[in-house]
Amino acid sequence: MKALQYPDALRGLISQLTRLPGIGGRGAERLALWLLQHGTSDAKQLAAALIAAADGVGYCPQCGFFAEADKLCAACSDSEREQLTLCVVEQATDVLPIERCGMYKGLYHCLGGKISPLDGIMPEDLNISTLLARIAERPNCEVILALSSDVEGEATALYLAEQVGKLDCHVSRIAQGMPAGAGLGHTDAVTIMRALEGRLQLNN
Amino acid sequence: MKALQYPDALRGLISQLTRLPGIGGRGAERLALWLLQHGTSDAKQLAAALIAAADGVGYCPQCGFFAEADKLCAACSDSEREQLTLCVVEQATDVLPIERCGMYKGLYHCLGGKISPLDGIMPEDLNISTLLARIAERPNCEVILALSSDVEGEATALYLAEQVGKLDCHVSRIAQGMPAGAGLGHTDAVTIMRALEGRLQLNN
Repeated sequence: MKALQYPDALRGLISQLTRLPGIGGRGAERLALWLLQHGTSDAKQLAAALIAAADGVGYCPQCGFFAEADKLCAACSDSEREQLTLCVVEQATDVLPIERCGMYKGLYHCLGGKISPLDGIMPEDLNISTLLARIAERPNCEVILALSSDVEGEATALYLAEQVGKLDCHVSRIAQGMPAGAGLGHTDAVTIMRALEGRLQLNN
Repeated sequence: MKALQYPDALRGLISQLTRLPGIGGRGAERLALWLLQHGTSDAKQLAAALIAAADGVGYCPQCGFFAEADKLCAACSDSEREQLTLCVVEQATDVLPIERCGMYKGLYHCLGGKISPLDGIMPEDLNISTLLARIAERPNCEVILALSSDVEGEATALYLAEQVGKLDCHVSRIAQGMPAGAGLGHTDAVTIMRALEGRLQLNN
C-alpha cells in the first residue's frame, strides 16, 4: 500500500503557496484546498491577477514607487503635490504608510534599499544619483530622510546627509522617540535614550 | 492632490488575495508586495501552479477524493489497500487527516457534504447512491462512518446507518469522547456526556 497523497498538480500549488511569507505548510494546504473546492474560477482569477500584476506593475523611473509599466507613478504625475518637498524612503513599500498618516503633501524618492556592507549593498547600489539630480533641479527644496531607525538606516541617513547637504536644500530626518500609545515600562532602552535626546522644550 | 494609491494591477492582485480564507487586507497587501518585489518570476510560477491545479485536479469518479482529471484517485487505484473496508467522510479534505493517523488501510468514500435542510442540502445532493452501489459490490464489507460530531453530521450518520444497514455489511461510527491530551476542566459538557456514554469496560 502506497502512502496516499494529493495529485501532483495540487501538491505543486501547495509548494508554491508555502513559499509566500507567513504561510506555512498547513496554511498553504488550506488555501489550495479552498481554491479548488470553490470551483476553478477563483484559482484562475487569482492566476490572472498575478500575471497582470507581474506584467503591468513596474517602478516609477523618477522616484522608484510602484507605477504602471513605463509610466510615472501617481505621485510624480500629480501636479497638485508640493514639488519642492522630497521624502526619501528605503523601499517602495514605505510610501503608503507615510501617505496614510495624512499630513505629507510632497513627492517621494525610494532608494531601493539601505547601505549595508555586510549584505554587499553599497551607496552606488541605491538610487542616490537620481536623488541628487532631482534635488539639483529644485533649488532651496526640502529633503526629509524617512529611513528606518536601525544601524543600516542610520548609516544611510549619515551618508545622505553629507551628500545632500552639499546641495542647495534643507535636509531633515524624521524624529525618533516613543511610539504612540506606548508606556515607558514596555519601551526598550535605546528608544528611551533617543526620546530623551530628542526632547522638545515646552516653555521658554 | 489625489489620494496616492498603488497601480490598478497591484490593487487587483491585493483584492484577489483578500478573498482567500484567513488573509485580511494588510496580509494581502504584504503578500502582493512580496510577490512583486521578489521579481516577477515568483508571481508567474504561482499563477502557473494555480492554472495547473485548476485544470489538472478533479474528483475521483469512484470515491470523490482529489484525483488527476478523469482518473481514479491514488487510493482507489492502489490494489494493496483493503478492498472490503470503506471509510465514509464528508469532504475530500477529510481523507488525508485520517490517512495521517496511520492505522487505516482501506478505501474512502467522500459524500461531498452533510445533510443540512437549513442550507438546502438534502440526501439526494450527496454521493449516497454511489456509496450504496459500492457497498452492494462488496458483500460482507465493513463501512466506517467518519462524519463530524455536529448536528448535521449526526443527522447524516443516522440517515446513512438506516440506508446502509439494509445491505450486507457491518456499519460502525468513529467514537466520540475526550480528545487526546485534554483535561476534564477544559472539556465541554457535551463531549464529557458522550465520553461517559461511550465508556469502555476494562474488566469482566
